[in-house]
Amino acid sequence: MSERNIRIGSIDRQAVEDQDVEIVERKGIGHPDSICDGIAESVAGALAREYLDRVGEVLHFNTDETQLVAGEAAPAFGGGEVIDPIYLLIVGRATKHYEGRTIPAETIALRAAREYLESEIPQLTVGEDIVVDVKLGEGSGDLQEVFDEDDEAAGSVGVPMANDTSFGVGHAPLTETEQIVIETERRLNGDYAASNPELGPDVKIMGKREGEKIDVTVAAAMVDEHIADLDAYIDAVESVREFVADVARDHTAREVDVHVNTADDYEEGSIYLTVTGTSAEQGDDGSVGRGNRANGLITPNRSMSMEATSGKNPVNHIGKIYNLLSTEIAEEVVAEVDGIRDLRVRLLSQIGRPIDQPHVADVQVVTDDGIAVSDVEQEVRPIVDRELGDVTEITRRVIDGDLSTF
Amino acid sequence: MSERNIRIGSIDRQAVEDQDVEIVERKGIGHPDSICDGIAESVAGALAREYLDRVGEVLHFNTDETQLVAGEAAPAFGGGEVIDPIYLLIVGRATKHYEGRTIPAETIALRAAREYLESEIPQLTVGEDIVVDVKLGEGSGDLQEVFDEDDEAAGSVGVPMANDTSFGVGHAPLTETEQIVIETERRLNGDYAASNPELGPDVKIMGKREGEKIDVTVAAAMVDEHIADLDAYIDAVESVREFVADVARDHTAREVDVHVNTADDYEEGSIYLTVTGTSAEQGDDGSVGRGNRANGLITPNRSMSMEATSGKNPVNHIGKIYNLLSTEIAEEVVAEVDGIRDLRVRLLSQIGRPIDQPHVADVQVVTDDGIAVSDVEQEVRPIVDRELGDVTEITRRVIDGDLSTF
Amino acid sequence: MSERNIRIGSIDRQAVEDQDVEIVERKGIGHPDSICDGIAESVAGALAREYLDRVGEVLHFNTDETQLVAGEAAPAFGGGEVIDPIYLLIVGRATKHYEGRTIPAETIALRAAREYLESEIPQLTVGEDIVVDVKLGEGSGDLQEVFDEDDEAAGSVGVPMANDTSFGVGHAPLTETEQIVIETERRLNGDYAASNPELGPDVKIMGKREGEKIDVTVAAAMVDEHIADLDAYIDAVESVREFVADVARDHTAREVDVHVNTADDYEEGSIYLTVTGTSAEQGDDGSVGRGNRANGLITPNRSMSMEATSGKNPVNHIGKIYNLLSTEIAEEVVAEVDGIRDLRVRLLSQIGRPIDQPHVADVQVVTDDGIAVSDVEQEVRPIVDRELGDVTEITRRVIDGDLSTF
Amino acid sequence: MSERNIRIGSIDRQAVEDQDVEIVERKGIGHPDSICDGIAESVAGALAREYLDRVGEVLHFNTDETQLVAGEAAPAFGGGEVIDPIYLLIVGRATKHYEGRTIPAETIALRAAREYLESEIPQLTVGEDIVVDVKLGEGSGDLQEVFDEDDEAAGSVGVPMANDTSFGVGHAPLTETEQIVIETERRLNGDYAASNPELGPDVKIMGKREGEKIDVTVAAAMVDEHIADLDAYIDAVESVREFVADVARDHTAREVDVHVNTADDYEEGSIYLTVTGTSAEQGDDGSVGRGNRANGLITPNRSMSMEATSGKNPVNHIGKIYNLLSTEIAEEVVAEVDGIRDLRVRLLSQIGRPIDQPHVADVQVVTDDGIAVSDVEQEVRPIVDRELGDVTEITRRVIDGDLSTF
Repeated sequence: MSERNIRIGSIDRQAVEDQDVEIVERKGIGHPDSICDGIAESVAGALAREYLDRVGEVLHFNTDETQLVAGEAAPAFGGGEVIDPIYLLIVGRATKHYEGRTIPAETIALRAAREYLESEIPQLTVGEDIVVDVKLGEGSGDLQEVFDEDDEAAGSVGVPMANDTSFGVGHAPLTETEQIVIETERRLNGDYAASNPELGPDVKIMGKREGEKIDVTVAAAMVDEHIADLDAYIDAVESVREFVADVARDHTAREVDVHVNTADDYEEGSIYLTVTGTSAEQGDDGSVGRGNRANGLITPNRSMSMEATSGKNPVNHIGKIYNLLSTEIAEEVVAEVDGIRDLRVRLLSQIGRPIDQPHVADVQVVTDDGIAVSDVEQEVRPIVDRELGDVTEITRRVIDGDLSTF
Repeated sequence: MSERNIRIGSIDRQAVEDQDVEIVERKGIGHPDSICDGIAESVAGALAREYLDRVGEVLHFNTDETQLVAGEAAPAFGGGEVIDPIYLLIVGRATKHYEGRTIPAETIALRAAREYLESEIPQLTVGEDIVVDVKLGEGSGDLQEVFDEDDEAAGSVGVPMANDTSFGVGHAPLTETEQIVIETERRLNGDYAASNPELGPDVKIMGKREGEKIDVTVAAAMVDEHIADLDAYIDAVESVREFVADVARDHTAREVDVHVNTADDYEEGSIYLTVTGTSAEQGDDGSVGRGNRANGLITPNRSMSMEATSGKNPVNHIGKIYNLLSTEIAEEVVAEVDGIRDLRVRLLSQIGRPIDQPHVADVQVVTDDGIAVSDVEQEVRPIVDRELGDVTEITRRVIDGDLSTF
Repeated sequence: MSERNIRIGSIDRQAVEDQDVEIVERKGIGHPDSICDGIAESVAGALAREYLDRVGEVLHFNTDETQLVAGEAAPAFGGGEVIDPIYLLIVGRATKHYEGRTIPAETIALRAAREYLESEIPQLTVGEDIVVDVKLGEGSGDLQEVFDEDDEAAGSVGVPMANDTSFGVGHAPLTETEQIVIETERRLNGDYAASNPELGPDVKIMGKREGEKIDVTVAAAMVDEHIADLDAYIDAVESVREFVADVARDHTAREVDVHVNTADDYEEGSIYLTVTGTSAEQGDDGSVGRGNRANGLITPNRSMSMEATSGKNPVNHIGKIYNLLSTEIAEEVVAEVDGIRDLRVRLLSQIGRPIDQPHVADVQVVTDDGIAVSDVEQEVRPIVDRELGDVTEITRRVIDGDLSTF
Repeated sequence: MSERNIRIGSIDRQAVEDQDVEIVERKGIGHPDSICDGIAESVAGALAREYLDRVGEVLHFNTDETQLVAGEAAPAFGGGEVIDPIYLLIVGRATKHYEGRTIPAETIALRAAREYLESEIPQLTVGEDIVVDVKLGEGSGDLQEVFDEDDEAAGSVGVPMANDTSFGVGHAPLTETEQIVIETERRLNGDYAASNPELGPDVKIMGKREGEKIDVTVAAAMVDEHIADLDAYIDAVESVREFVADVARDHTAREVDVHVNTADDYEEGSIYLTVTGTSAEQGDDGSVGRGNRANGLITPNRSMSMEATSGKNPVNHIGKIYNLLSTEIAEEVVAEVDGIRDLRVRLLSQIGRPIDQPHVADVQVVTDDGIAVSDVEQEVRPIVDRELGDVTEITRRVIDGDLSTF
């Protein structure tokens, strides 16, 4: 048996699913804050992969500070135009010189940002609708060598030491409202947008549950090129509403009301029409860590970490790793163990100890009626222990871009 | 009696003071994130005051996106120098043209930032150690007229409508650990720094309580000009330690351990020495809303709002107002009502209703032993009602710079 | 006969062809200064065309201040990489609002810059090897309406008034050395580069004639991707040398020596190898108006205007128009009139008069032996007069991109 | 006798003083181009002095690319304000690391720029009316060691080698028109401004002589704070006119007409009123090398070098040194030798030879009536030789800020 400090107990609150009021939010990938998260994280992934390719280990970097300055646009039915470009500044630190080799960190960052934007916000012409600039300082020398692929391959430890006291928190399972919010955004930006090009990627989903009634409020940026006139706009809004109502019905038997673009005022001609599908084109600034938490949601009913996860170094940034890992642990436990209604995992690091040995792994559960914490404890503990042991797998998946951070 | 929707009930968890483990953090005013918060908020205050002076009402603006790009420095005993300047970009929206008048929003912002920096981080020579740049877009026209001083003075309503669904949360009283953390920072940056110029404003305080044992960890940037050699540095660290231990003893009878600059390694000459008293000079970027919450603390044991409070428009940004107001309410209730061990106030806005009429004001308490929620309810309700009625007082105090937002 | 003030006289110096020493220089299109000239001028053309398309007239603008900040690169045989991107800032003024319409001047500028770079410096990946940023202020309102296409089409005057006292100077014919220098650059960047991809667009040609001996010195940036090793580099240099020697022999019977990349030091491995074909990738900054004059050359033996021609408004910037027009006049006269060995045309504007009525058009000639100025005067005058009458044709050709400005 | 290659001959044109038409211009120190020249040169001087202080020699740098982006202002009688700040970017290269020492080149540059602005354009509040930013790349390593103070002090050679083929040209004596133009600007920005604070430093002087008639046209930015109303403005303009007429009369017996702010239209309220005394506050961009030549003038009647002198390294930038030195030589010769009506000195460098040994020093004179070139040749030669021998004195004076470059 491991010697990891794993505590399992009951949580001192009701399951969120059973609370009277629940609020959940998700900013879609085209939201200005999410654009920043997405670019920061894709820059981080690109840097990590380049470091591995070039020197066989991930060198010191941290790119968690992308800032977006909104532009100005003149949308019009059938297609308007961006008037003043968006300005986006990638900020951070990266190792540029290592053992006589030079790593083009800024060029790598610019490329990653461009590829990300072209893939996720295709209506936005990079270099025309948006100027992408970069300021990456040099990483300090003594922090550089942090992750050696070969060591790990060779079976040696490969688990870095925690260099900070930090904290991660994860939850499972998602409540119905949470499922609806996250699925709505994913499917709107997935299959729905694929066949409905008028829907831009900047969708913001707010779920509010009061008792047995769920309200889903969607703010959806429509792309003017694909909206011929007001009737087409009204149709597009209604189509989104129906789609979201269908998504919601897959996840709950509760009463669901869906509201789309409620700030519209057709009389005054005030509608949510955009040129590029994102409100960044007109007045909405954004930055990293201001939107979704590591699990993709903003959940005031649950403990959340303030930590910006996106853009951080996935090898040694303990806050990033523990936020992702605690979520993984929570999901694994719930998937494998019956009888758990709500579960919170908190990981607290200790400076100087390997990160697979947290100061404490605190697992708190609400069990189903008739089940005691002690009934599940024996099942839960080895899962937590196993997942902690696999901590570097989190790093690996982040580097490969397989794990979302926002 | 008011018709405000005020709910009072018991909180479904233990008082934080009674929980096993508690973590609290505060980033001091010289921390890169706090510098951004402070500048964003001082720019917002300056804009609001100028709008009132020039046109008699606060026009639309939002300056909650300051970004700091760290510099590079070469500290040295007796005085080193900044090698590459810090770059700070003030980002946001502001009304620049209104009824034929032009308001120099960018110039106002630059002046406010400079004055703030000169006052709070005096070691930092503005325009030499730090470049301050600004990109303020034009506020959209239909959002402009928001707050009319004369209306209010004339006794008319003056309470703006909520234009967003947003959420604020406040807590009281502070736990011992919270008190220690917040007081430590304030007094280090107050009377201590006044007589000990070697202490820079970038102090970061972490409080961790496990049961009856509190650990206070301080990272304190020392100013090289006032540190002659390693011995002086060691003395300075020890002096901080003793001062903090004294502060802590004023707030608790629990066992307290104070740790200062624990990452130092005297053998390797690795110490926390700076030229300007802030880690922004060397590799630590910062941005708004990434640090302290509106009550000045980061408290993972409590619900927190993700909302960045600093830099937002204090007249109509409902998230900012409700975060500040809920904290005010909590503090007032605890000050006036006996028998409350822990209290959380949550305010949820409703689009289109006056902001003094929240969708719900949710007040949840942990009462002292032997006291029921129903015992305090009658006392609590009118206080909440009165504070809600005074909501514009929050706006007024923010504009006057009398209410801290971080 | 016209009443234009045309003076024809003899020039008070020898023909440049007959002077003892002659120095001529041309910076190729890939030189950092020329990149700025080219972008400034392509932005100006794009703005002018868009204004004509959108409002039927060219509105006020001036984009003659592009600034390039060099990057850092690591060239290597077979292909290196750009380490730190080039930063290019397009600076100027443009009308963004006109009669209720909004013109996206910054977006137009960015697009023009990108298209120009992709066409002329194709090795440079825009948005990765080079960041293009833009700061265009608003043109002042009273200067806006300047050029109306319909007026002119309708046969009305259409000739703007001079709004400045300015000066243009042109020369013809080119001396042999001048012909060699300009042709060398054009052909190297034309047919030679088309079949020799190892030659980058940053070629700088210096011609020096002492009596009957011409030295042509070429600095030619080689593109590393197409240079396998030092031998290949040496071959590439020799190939350029032979090509240039052939070009030179087409233009002179004088003795010609060609020198290519004379600063190379093969022993020390110091050669002119680049990743992108321009020295802007490594340490060479650039800006508008610092390189070639309007006729494509730098000619210390001749009067030159300090005026930056590229990027200026071709409708009403009198300096731009007169530099281009005086060159046109000089070339036309020499093409149509025999017996002229050297000719200088100077045009001086007068504020408030139509630009086809200069304060003075000063034509100074060196005639061939046996020919007097009075012999050619009668032929020259009507050509000058005709060309002045066609001044708006210069504007038209600049807008259409048919007239080079550097 | 020296072995320097000094050629003395007659110039193949009339003395400029005797030509029919002469045009001369000077942009005052507050003109946007001159602001850039002034900052570039003060940055260069500061860097050179710091290098000498810190490492005993001037290391590689080049800061000749400052770019100014104009702001927007709202001047008003009695005092208006800057609406959008001016943006100024200092661009160049500088050695930041040398033999284990780090030199804070960007901080030095920012300080020099601020001090220059505060001294020369005091109405402009740095950090409020103008944002000063900096981008200095690292100088390439092999160019670093260029000037060793100790060597020179020890009597060793100390004369650097020319590393480029470049060209400098100087003239003397100034014509009357040139004297009037340069003196007018100096005295307006000197004693006149000292007692007339309403005159801003952005004065632009254009002198035009046709035969015996000189027109002096002055564009003078008035500072609104010191101009109460239109009458005060009219008085201020008239006062400048009278002052300039007096200055002119000190330098010529020819007829002089002085015109001040001729573009004013009092009816339409269009006058040259500014907040800060420079047109950079409203729409006029600027950059280095676009204004005055090294002798402080723009003289289309004389050969001019295209080279930007300001901001270049005074130790090894041969273009800068030769432009300044050729002017010095011309002035010295004219001061010491009688009978010279006009004199041009051209210095052409040769790569790899010491800069006191130019490829050729070409001295061309127009002698007074009755004097032959051969009459003065014996006097001229040793002066030229002596001045060439003292070339490092030019460097020394530039570093000390004793020699103006624009």
